[in-house]
Amino acid sequence: MSSKFHARIYVTLRPSVLDPAGVAVQSGLQQMGYEGIEQVRIGKYIEVKLNAADEAEANQQLDEMCDALLANPVIENYCFELTALPVEAAA
Amino acid sequence: MSSKFHARIYVTLRPSVLDPAGVAVQSGLQQMGYEGIEQVRIGKYIEVKLNAADEAEANQQLDEMCDALLANPVIENYCFELTALPVEAAA
Repeated sequence: MSSKFHARIYVTLRPSVLDPAGVAVQSGLQQMGYEGIEQVRIGKYIEVKLNAADEAEANQQLDEMCDALLANPVIENYCFELTALPVEAAA
Repeated sequence: MSSKFHARIYVTLRPSVLDPAGVAVQSGLQQMGYEGIEQVRIGKYIEVKLNAADEAEANQQLDEMCDALLANPVIENYCFELTALPVEAAA
């Protein structure tokens, strides 16, 4: 019997890595008149729905997926939040 | 006297909009052996540091910035979390 989980994954550039897209957005916002902007960093937000035996397995799978495909561990950090979804009525 | 705020902005495609990148990642993960993946949706995660007079002004500016530049309201939804940063020692 497996359970459904919903994961919210945040992938961000490591602080030491330049973010040209963030700098461009920051400069765009400043030119639009938002003078108070100090820094903009752009990352990815990934939502995944998955089936797993339990929360530990879901956590482990997500860690592997982030390391292998969703994030580039050389230049990016990631973190995720896992929520168990309510069980649907059996078909 | 203005305060510093840190905003975490989440931009996601509206549920009715197709997400080809998400489908590609989902298929990639399935081919890597993660059979339990049901859905992948890819959005943006934007971190902004800004100065504003108070929290209400920061909220309003962020709403405007999201509508005008950070998200495309036709196909994307956004939400954000605002945190006040501790005041630094005066220079």
